[in-house]
Amino acid sequence: MIEKTIENLHARYAHALDDDRLEDWPELFTESGKYRIATAENEARGLPLAVLSCDSRAMMRDRVQSLRHANVYEPQRYRHLISAVMVEQLDDSRVRSIANFLVIRIMQNGDSLVFASGKYLDRILLAPEPKYEERVVVCDSRRFDTLLAIPL
Amino acid sequence: MIEKTIENLHARYAHALDDDRLEDWPELFTESGKYRIATAENEARGLPLAVLSCDSRAMMRDRVQSLRHANVYEPQRYRHLISAVMVEQLDDSRVRSIANFLVIRIMQNGDSLVFASGKYLDRILLAPEPKYEERVVVCDSRRFDTLLAIPL
Amino acid sequence: MIEKTIENLHARYAHALDDDRLEDWPELFTESGKYRIATAENEARGLPLAVLSCDSRAMMRDRVQSLRHANVYEPQRYRHLISAVMVEQLDDSRVRSIANFLVIRIMQNGDSLVFASGKYLDRILLAPEPKYEERVVVCDSRRFDTLLAIPL
Repeated sequence: MIEKTIENLHARYAHALDDDRLEDWPELFTESGKYRIATAENEARGLPLAVLSCDSRAMMRDRVQSLRHANVYEPQRYRHLISAVMVEQLDDSRVRSIANFLVIRIMQNGDSLVFASGKYLDRILLAPEPKYEERVVVCDSRRFDTLLAIPL
Repeated sequence: MIEKTIENLHARYAHALDDDRLEDWPELFTESGKYRIATAENEARGLPLAVLSCDSRAMMRDRVQSLRHANVYEPQRYRHLISAVMVEQLDDSRVRSIANFLVIRIMQNGDSLVFASGKYLDRILLAPEPKYEERVVVCDSRRFDTLLAIPL
Repeated sequence: MIEKTIENLHARYAHALDDDRLEDWPELFTESGKYRIATAENEARGLPLAVLSCDSRAMMRDRVQSLRHANVYEPQRYRHLISAVMVEQLDDSRVRSIANFLVIRIMQNGDSLVFASGKYLDRILLAPEPKYEERVVVCDSRRFDTLLAIPL
């Protein structure tokens, strides 16, 4: 049941971010894993611009370090919903996954709002344990918080 | 694993609409497939009124054609979240499926809002490939955009 | 496939509440089952305070009874989305489950809003049929409707 394996990886990703275990986030990628946040508009135009881009797990760890040391005035809390997961085998050791996501942001005053929606386009290495080789986060909205502190 | 088969069909439905591949939408139904959008209020009262109703795949194709030729001033983008899928075998070739849905609408200015929520009540033919014989979209809210351009 | 069994239990929980079949809600718990709504803030501080707490199925039935007899001026409708389910075997007869949830509330005037988000922390007894031994609903927001009529 490859679908279950992939959904479990997506679930661990969601809980790492939602539980504020940011340090666990890079560990879900391969050493040379790539992570990129883009907008649907830019992807449709073939523009290589990304809102945020990491080319290796080391860069992701750096990113987490700087987030931890930054003065973020408003602590942010996210809640991820992941749905409509589709899995396609690429070769013996790799799959492609497409999934929809919705991220709710909970503000200090208790308000909740739809923060981001879009789709995850993933290439996943299966063994020795499932890890993202590449995750592209395609956001529906071109509007972005300039202070996009936490990965999506 | 019949559940996976059904969840995969629901996922392909979601991505067809969210990727603006409207032409793929009727192909997920049988030739005499039925599609209906109703409200929880009307369903509870046993009222046959539907917000939108198609009695065959041909009608769905017509609907898509007219959407493509209509002057829609604001291009719409949707994002579907599907959850709490329940599957029940009806006979050797058919299942019933119930699932919750949430549709986020992304406006031109970048705002995202909860557009619709409700449940999908489906009758699905399994072979030769899974297709909807009937999908009833029961929306929680009786309030509807008069210009309900894209299927839910 | 233990994951499917657990996801099916979560789905039945969601539909019981969303279909206003409140009487079915306690039946998803064991006789001595526990149900508690808490906030992420209190959980993080180790505070035992709960927004709502039931220590047995009998208490849950009482709760439903009083809800049915209360004068609730605005009938409420909820829609549950459940995602990122993780299941861990505790022993031969029990599993632990973690899942994200989002609850949409539909108001009388037709408005929909993000009502609550958070995670379900469950201990589930598998046989003779899957039932919650304990469900802790950890809400992201500390702000709560004082009239939290329906269980989450």
